[in-house]
Amino acid sequence: MKNERTRFLLSEEDIPRAYYNILADLPFELPPVLHPATGRPIGPEDLAPLFPMALIQQEVSREREIEIPEPVREIYRLYRPTPLIRARRLERMLDTPAHIYYKYEGVSPAGSHKLNTALAQAFYNKQEGVRGLTTETGAGQWGSALAMACRFFDLECTVFMVKISYHQKPYRRILMETFGARVIPSPSPETDAGRKVLAENPDSPGSLGIAISEAVEAAATSGGRLKYSLGSVLNHVLLHQTVIGLEAKKQMEMAGEYPDVVIGCVGGGSNFAGLALPFMRDRIVEGRPIRFVAVESTAAPSFTKGVYAYDYGDTVRTTPLLKMYTLGHTFTPAPIHAGGLRYHGMAPILCALYEKGYLEAVAYPQTKVFEAAVRFAQAEGILPAPESAHAIRAAIDEALRAKEEGRPRVILFNLSGHGHFDLAAYDQYLRGELPDYEYPAEEVLRALADLPRVPA
Amino acid sequence: MKNERTRFLLSEEDIPRAYYNILADLPFELPPVLHPATGRPIGPEDLAPLFPMALIQQEVSREREIEIPEPVREIYRLYRPTPLIRARRLERMLDTPAHIYYKYEGVSPAGSHKLNTALAQAFYNKQEGVRGLTTETGAGQWGSALAMACRFFDLECTVFMVKISYHQKPYRRILMETFGARVIPSPSPETDAGRKVLAENPDSPGSLGIAISEAVEAAATSGGRLKYSLGSVLNHVLLHQTVIGLEAKKQMEMAGEYPDVVIGCVGGGSNFAGLALPFMRDRIVEGRPIRFVAVESTAAPSFTKGVYAYDYGDTVRTTPLLKMYTLGHTFTPAPIHAGGLRYHGMAPILCALYEKGYLEAVAYPQTKVFEAAVRFAQAEGILPAPESAHAIRAAIDEALRAKEEGRPRVILFNLSGHGHFDLAAYDQYLRGELPDYEYPAEEVLRALADLPRVPA
Repeated sequence: MKNERTRFLLSEEDIPRAYYNILADLPFELPPVLHPATGRPIGPEDLAPLFPMALIQQEVSREREIEIPEPVREIYRLYRPTPLIRARRLERMLDTPAHIYYKYEGVSPAGSHKLNTALAQAFYNKQEGVRGLTTETGAGQWGSALAMACRFFDLECTVFMVKISYHQKPYRRILMETFGARVIPSPSPETDAGRKVLAENPDSPGSLGIAISEAVEAAATSGGRLKYSLGSVLNHVLLHQTVIGLEAKKQMEMAGEYPDVVIGCVGGGSNFAGLALPFMRDRIVEGRPIRFVAVESTAAPSFTKGVYAYDYGDTVRTTPLLKMYTLGHTFTPAPIHAGGLRYHGMAPILCALYEKGYLEAVAYPQTKVFEAAVRFAQAEGILPAPESAHAIRAAIDEALRAKEEGRPRVILFNLSGHGHFDLAAYDQYLRGELPDYEYPAEEVLRALADLPRVPA
Repeated sequence: MKNERTRFLLSEEDIPRAYYNILADLPFELPPVLHPATGRPIGPEDLAPLFPMALIQQEVSREREIEIPEPVREIYRLYRPTPLIRARRLERMLDTPAHIYYKYEGVSPAGSHKLNTALAQAFYNKQEGVRGLTTETGAGQWGSALAMACRFFDLECTVFMVKISYHQKPYRRILMETFGARVIPSPSPETDAGRKVLAENPDSPGSLGIAISEAVEAAATSGGRLKYSLGSVLNHVLLHQTVIGLEAKKQMEMAGEYPDVVIGCVGGGSNFAGLALPFMRDRIVEGRPIRFVAVESTAAPSFTKGVYAYDYGDTVRTTPLLKMYTLGHTFTPAPIHAGGLRYHGMAPILCALYEKGYLEAVAYPQTKVFEAAVRFAQAEGILPAPESAHAIRAAIDEALRAKEEGRPRVILFNLSGHGHFDLAAYDQYLRGELPDYEYPAEEVLRALADLPRVPA
C-alpha cells in the first residue's frame, strides 16, 4: 500500500531535533585547516573575526548530534519536512526497472536547500550580538536564502553578487532586496579586494572567489559589527544540511526501500553532503553497500580535474587554507556557464571521502544537463534549478544503465532547488544557443603554480 | 496539541475523489446562457465546437458530486493535497487576536491553482479525441498550467498571450515553451479577430478579451482538431477548483477551527470560488454564519463598479452571452497594472451569489496590495503572486479590524500562487515607481452603451 504512493510526507513533529555530525564517525582524521600567513593549524581565535563562536565550535566538534535551536526549528516549520517524491512518471518515460526517488528542497521559500543553513547561521550570529552578515552569491540561491534568514532574525544583510549573475539574474537581486538585503555587484569599488581586481580588469565578470574576498573583507573590517557567512564548503554548513538526509532516511523507510545509490550535484558540496552524509554513516558504521555519486559541471570540475592540495578559499588569498580538490584560487568560470556550481574548491569533508574512495564523481557539460532538466520537467512538472539538474542527469543515466543491465536498483537524488529564476538559461537551451564548455586541463596545470606552499 | 501546528498536511489518500458542484445546492436559478446571435438560451450543440461533451455536461450538471477521473487524480498526486498554513508569524507581526490561515496553491508545479482545472480539461479533451487546445493567458499563470497539462496528456497547446505580458514576462513564455506550448503575442495576425484589432490599433497592448477572441477563433476554425480551454469564469472551471475548499475543510478540522470569514482575490473568480464554494455550501445548507469576501483590483473592478447584465465573454463578440458583473467587453486594463485580475467580467455563479447578498466585494489599488505582499513575504517567507496578494491585503485588514475591535476571529484565505515570475513588478514597487489606477466610472458608463441587447 505505502509503496503505491508518489509523495512521502512527514509532519512537523518529524523535523529533526539534531543535526548529524559525520566528524564523529569518520574512520580517518581530516587534514587541519592552516593559517594563510604562518601555514600552521589555526585555532578558534583565528576565525573569531569572521564567525560567531557557536559556529566555530561546530566546525571542529566531534559530537555526533548537535541540537537544532528551537527558534530555527520554528522557521523550518514553514517548509520542512520537505517531500520525498517517487519519480513514477519519469520511471515510466525511461521504461526503467529502477526506482527513482528525489528529495525536493525547492519547496523552501528561498527556492533551495540553502535556507537550512542560512537560518542556523543567522540565529547563532544574532545570539552573539552581531548586527549584520556579509556574504557572496553566484547564481543567487545562497544570497536569497541568507537575505530571508537575516530578515527573520532581524539582521542586516549585505550580498556581494558575482557581477555576471547580477546582470543576468535581476529577479534574484529583486528577491533579495524584497527581503531587505543590500546587493552589490562584485567586483565592487567598496572593498580593497574589489578595487584590486577592477584595477587589473575593469570588465571582470566576477567569480565566487572574488566575491568571497569582498564579503570577508567587509566583515573583517567592520570592527565586529558584521560577520561573514558562507553558504557551502565548511563543516558547519554541511552539518546544517544533514536535515535533508535525516528526513530522507525516515521517508525511504515509509516507502519500504533503501537506496543503492545516492546522487547530488556539487559546487561547494553542501546539498550533496546534506543528503548523503546521514546515509554515509550507514556505510561507515553499518557497512551498508551504498554508492555515492557527486555530479559536477565540466565548466568547474574540481573533483574530476582538480588536485587535492591546500588552497585558499578565495581569490585574494585572505581565507585560511583548506585541503581540498581545487582548480586553483584564481579560477574564473567561463561566462557562458549558465548554472551555479562555479566554485574552484570543494568541501574538505567530501574531498577526504573522495580521496579515500567513499564516493565517485562525474562531470557533465551543460547541454546534457539541460536536456535532462527539460525531460524531468515534462515528466514530473517541476522545473529544476540548473545546478540540481546535474543530479537529474546522473540519476537518469543510472536508471538507463539499470535498464540496459536488466538490474533494478533504488536511486535517490537531491533536487536541491527550483529553476524559476533560471529561465533565461532554459530559453538559450531551447533555442540551441547554450554552448558547452570543458575546463582545459592546461589551465589546471597553470593554476597549480599559484597554490600556496605549505610546511610539510 | 494539533493547534500548535503551523502546517496542516493531508496525505494523498485525502485528495478528493469528487468535485463539489454548488449548482446542486444553490437556493435560486442561475440566469441562462444566451446565444450571441439569437439572444435565446443555448444548448449543448452550440458549445460543441469549443468544448468536449463531458465539460459541456459539467457546465449544466445538477449532480452534487462529480467524480474526479483517476488519471487526473494521479497527476494531482504530484502536488495535492496542498498545505493549509497558519500564518503565525504574520499574526505576531500584526499583533492581532485573529487566527489567520491560508491555503497555499503555489506548490503546484505550474505555480498556482490553475493546474487543478487545466488537468481536468486536458483529460476530457484527450478522451474525446481532440488533438490540441487553444487558450489565452494574461499574467501567464493559466497559460503555464495548460501548457503543463497538455504535455501530461500529450496534447498540442497554443497560447495567445496578452501582448504587454508577453513582453513584460518573458519567463512565463519560456516556462510554457519548456512544456512544449506555442506562445503567440495577442493581438496577432494569425486570426481575423487579431487582424481586426491590429488594423484599428497596431500598438494595442492586448487584453484578455482580445486574446479570448483569438483562441476561440483558432479552435472554432480548426475543423474539430482543436478545442478551446478557459481558465476561469465558467461553471465547470469553478467546479474543478473546489478541490481547494474540500481539502481546506478537512484541514480546518485538523486545526480544530472553522473560518468566520473566507477571502480570495477575483479576476474571473475561479480561485476564490475554489476555496469558497465548499464553505458556501455550509452557509446555504447548514446556515453557518460565514462571511465571504471577494477582493478585486481598482484597475478592473467588475463587482464594485460594474453592472449586472448580459455581456460577451470576449472583445470581438463571438462567445455566448453570460449574465455577470461586467465592465463591458471592450474593457482594456490600464497597461500600468502589474498583476493578473484583468478580466472585464466575472464568474456567473459568483455574480448571482453577490447579487443575492451571499458575498461581499472590495477593491484595492496595487500599491496597497504590494505593501501587503512584501509584509507577508517578510513574515511567512513566501513571495506571493500579485493576484493572490489582493487576498492578503484583505486578510491583513480583517486581522487589524479584529485587533481594533478586540474581537478574535478565524480568517481563511486562498494564496493562489507564488510571484516568482512577477519580480519586475516587485522591483517597481520597491523603487516607488508602481502607480495606482482607479478605473473611471465614466468609462463604465461608456461601455454600457456597447452591452448587447437581450430579449426580455
